Amino acid sequence: MIVLFALIAINSLFLPINGILFPIEYRLPLEGRVPDPGSPWPLPQKWIKSNETLTLDPKGFRFEANMVSCDVLINGMKRYRDIIFIDQRSVKSTTLPVLKSVYIDVHNINDCGYPEHNNNETYSIDISNNSVAKITSVTVWGALRALETFSQLVYQNDITKETLVNITSIHDFPRFSFRAMHMDTARHFIPKKVILANLDAMAYNKFNVFHWHIIDDQSFPFESHRFPELTKKGAYSPRHVYTQRDVLEIIEYSRMRGIRVIPEIDTPGHTHAMGKAFPELLTPCYGQKGKPYTPDYPHFSSMELINPLKNQSFSFIKELFQEFRNLFKDDFVHLGMDEVFYGCWESNPDISKFMKDNNMTKVSEVEDYYVKRTLENVKDLGYKTMLWQDPVDNGVKLANGSIVVIWKDKRLDKELDLWQNYATKIAKNGQQMVLSACWYLNYISTPYPDQDWEKFYLCDPGHFNGTEEEKKLVIGGEVCIWSEFVDATNILSRLWPRASSTAERLWSNSNDTQDVNTARHRLDQHRCRLLRRGIPAAPILNGYCGDYEWDMNNQEKLIDLGDRVRL
Amino acid sequence: MIVLFALIAINSLFLPINGILFPIEYRLPLEGRVPDPGSPWPLPQKWIKSNETLTLDPKGFRFEANMVSCDVLINGMKRYRDIIFIDQRSVKSTTLPVLKSVYIDVHNINDCGYPEHNNNETYSIDISNNSVAKITSVTVWGALRALETFSQLVYQNDITKETLVNITSIHDFPRFSFRAMHMDTARHFIPKKVILANLDAMAYNKFNVFHWHIIDDQSFPFESHRFPELTKKGAYSPRHVYTQRDVLEIIEYSRMRGIRVIPEIDTPGHTHAMGKAFPELLTPCYGQKGKPYTPDYPHFSSMELINPLKNQSFSFIKELFQEFRNLFKDDFVHLGMDEVFYGCWESNPDISKFMKDNNMTKVSEVEDYYVKRTLENVKDLGYKTMLWQDPVDNGVKLANGSIVVIWKDKRLDKELDLWQNYATKIAKNGQQMVLSACWYLNYISTPYPDQDWEKFYLCDPGHFNGTEEEKKLVIGGEVCIWSEFVDATNILSRLWPRASSTAERLWSNSNDTQDVNTARHRLDQHRCRLLRRGIPAAPILNGYCGDYEWDMNNQEKLIDLGDRVRL
Repeated sequence: MIVLFALIAINSLFLPINGILFPIEYRLPLEGRVPDPGSPWPLPQKWIKSNETLTLDPKGFRFEANMVSCDVLINGMKRYRDIIFIDQRSVKSTTLPVLKSVYIDVHNINDCGYPEHNNNETYSIDISNNSVAKITSVTVWGALRALETFSQLVYQNDITKETLVNITSIHDFPRFSFRAMHMDTARHFIPKKVILANLDAMAYNKFNVFHWHIIDDQSFPFESHRFPELTKKGAYSPRHVYTQRDVLEIIEYSRMRGIRVIPEIDTPGHTHAMGKAFPELLTPCYGQKGKPYTPDYPHFSSMELINPLKNQSFSFIKELFQEFRNLFKDDFVHLGMDEVFYGCWESNPDISKFMKDNNMTKVSEVEDYYVKRTLENVKDLGYKTMLWQDPVDNGVKLANGSIVVIWKDKRLDKELDLWQNYATKIAKNGQQMVLSACWYLNYISTPYPDQDWEKFYLCDPGHFNGTEEEKKLVIGGEVCIWSEFVDATNILSRLWPRASSTAERLWSNSNDTQDVNTARHRLDQHRCRLLRRGIPAAPILNGYCGDYEWDMNNQEKLIDLGDRVRL
Repeated sequence: MIVLFALIAINSLFLPINGILFPIEYRLPLEGRVPDPGSPWPLPQKWIKSNETLTLDPKGFRFEANMVSCDVLINGMKRYRDIIFIDQRSVKSTTLPVLKSVYIDVHNINDCGYPEHNNNETYSIDISNNSVAKITSVTVWGALRALETFSQLVYQNDITKETLVNITSIHDFPRFSFRAMHMDTARHFIPKKVILANLDAMAYNKFNVFHWHIIDDQSFPFESHRFPELTKKGAYSPRHVYTQRDVLEIIEYSRMRGIRVIPEIDTPGHTHAMGKAFPELLTPCYGQKGKPYTPDYPHFSSMELINPLKNQSFSFIKELFQEFRNLFKDDFVHLGMDEVFYGCWESNPDISKFMKDNNMTKVSEVEDYYVKRTLENVKDLGYKTMLWQDPVDNGVKLANGSIVVIWKDKRLDKELDLWQNYATKIAKNGQQMVLSACWYLNYISTPYPDQDWEKFYLCDPGHFNGTEEEKKLVIGGEVCIWSEFVDATNILSRLWPRASSTAERLWSNSNDTQDVNTARHRLDQHRCRLLRRGIPAAPILNGYCGDYEWDMNNQEKLIDLGDRVRL
């Protein structure tokens, strides 16, 4: 990353955009360079800026494009115009040259469908002395990333409320093509409104995949038309349900932001809620000898795993996948397959007989059988697959190229290995990987939560033992939020800006983003930007964000801290 | 605590009031008894209930009282009527006997001022077959506690929306008279609206003191009329200020809820922001020999402690205390006095000379001098005092009966001692104490934040080595939230319901409240109650709260999870 002419004097005129970070104690001063206003997050690959400033006119400024009939771009242009002028006091400067418009030139002019795996997100921004700036991109998805960056380049003078942007040249593309956020909506129901707000925040951070862990042991909130009993018996209540209309709205909202939605149907474990509708498809556990459906706490409950001995199990799941395939637009589905605790299967005499009949000596072979048969079924539907690393760890060989998500790490549970060692092993199998082990955002450090983002920031998916070829198998990363202890009351402030830290790691050039002391100030500016846009991003240190403090009653508007000060 | 006829069958009719708690995993089932709907938190000292149920009529129900001209009671009656019928779908049962009104009989009928130290909060509630229930109390403050409990006894049938209450007899009083929440509004500015919402939540948990840590190193948001420069130079911005009108509003809001407001002016340390207006009153530190106002990081900054050599320092602070005394109504002020890091004083040649001239051999004697002179000044104003434990630890003898707040504990910082050992030592001096060391709510456990409330719950201010007389020196406790990493985005969900755990420890009989497994379910019900009342109380385990999930856009109204379900 190159910055020319970068040092604009920081003064109080720019407080509201920058935020002001304070150290924990005055005897522990903060290091690192305070960024200029309008410094983008994640950091672009190449960013040349001058200290020559243009102004934007809230009344006249517009986006234009060569791609005139694509709703994604049209909505994007409208959305970002609103964001740029979110402060209704915005005015243009009367002395500076005016940037009248931004022209967006998309190469793949006819491609306006759904964002896909390995979409090209490359873009350039050229803001020169010309009254028209230019964005160029190969795809509309690149144009969305450019709009986001452009909106971050624009800043406001706090006193005069002039909308400003510096002459800037950017060429940018993501380091990793897969930049996901995983959200669990089963342990707690997350209202649609919060999911949508989170999709906004994801777009502000250039995440491009929403990995929707929609169901789990605790509840089944996905409304199935094929099997309506699933929510009737498995949802927390009729209110705690994502209808198919909700799902379609979430998918469309994601599409408008260049975000793929990959749902997860987690089997054979984590199916307790599913089993409420179809208990006959779960394996009876034998906590007491000779008695089916009896628990042996804490090793297993009365039933908790799909019954792999029944053909109905497989046909039921296949039909459910078919329904997902028809509803969700993405080519990928996540199969879960994590945490198959063998206790229940081991206790079941029918499983024992099945193993004997099939010359199996280890329960992992039953898992292998389940995984392979399910993968075949899903493949039949034309679905590509992702899954958690567990089957691979248990020796299951995945023939058809599933992408493996690494979630295990010694720092999460000391009985686990380091994620790096799992990555090395999985790479040897030639499997593509996504790293999530570093980024379990439901975990929060004490006493200094600021250390979290630093830890997240310094975790690099490329840092494991492997050849260059093996490292290329890592296609990206995902932040995870598991919702045992979060719901609408705290999920957004738990996620942001901590997830932003990972966003930069996954997008930006690793060499340019090693200095946490400098990143801290830019992240703080970005945190204030998120606040300004209505995301309740939590503080990362002492300090403040100028006008844009969070107001719990008023987050969609500019924040007014009181009526005593009127500018 | 006695519960008669307590086992009403729990069924799905009562989900919304109770909430439903799920274990982390199905193989780790939850223990403990699920409470009946309408179980109060904190647990009353004596609670006899039957399974005979009455109904309340949203149209006709009213509170009446013998104390007709006290605004505290009148507002309280109105407020609790609104809370009881917060669900606008509420109806009365057509079959059950109707509880028409509650008559409140206050003994001290003329006492309607400000809540004070050691107020009598004893009350009784008698709900019988009579159509009029009765609340009796000595003071209006006891009546407020009774109204809170009564509002918690009332519950709603989820299907029919009938408002119900069981025949119940309660006699209740607090174990500790001092039950405080400490909030730091200097490291981050906490908007007035959030402070008011938090005061509501405090009242729902029978806290009775708001310890307002209003200023600190990072900012000085208190608007002083005597010294307007303090906020002009020391506040984050003109918006980040509590005007005196704000302060009065907060005090009045607190009064209406029986909550005292004790402000803290923390000196001689933590005065960096104060020093922005009056740098000449801070001690010049000598990081470089012979050069005043030079830092020696990380030991000290260029200036960070009040200068005890100047008479103006003392007169300035005395005037500031005078202004607080006139504005805040409580007889107590908190003097801070914590964390006087000696480095700066030690570096200063004038302090060295002062020590020599006065035959002092240790810097703690300078601290002793500062503390005593300040205590005298404050006493002159008629103020009673509290302070953090630090001066006592440093050997300062407090002659005039300040209340000492114990905040130090090995679990916060391994270089500290256990709080119990500090308590033992301070008790030997005959000092009254308030315990906060167990309840630093800005600290949050990972990976299982649910363990926090258990830890908070099981900390008992009486559990230290001392005689019965010495234990009586502990007058209560306070939960602390320091705001390095919290602001309006996350402070309420960080505080609640974790602070509720302490609330019960400080109010209820210790013998009745040792079983965390049973408390967990009741706390979950209480958490759902807080949500229902608009407080974003975070989850304590997997589960849900029926109708009353938090909706970030809509927290003042009943929560509607979507328009697909209408009852």
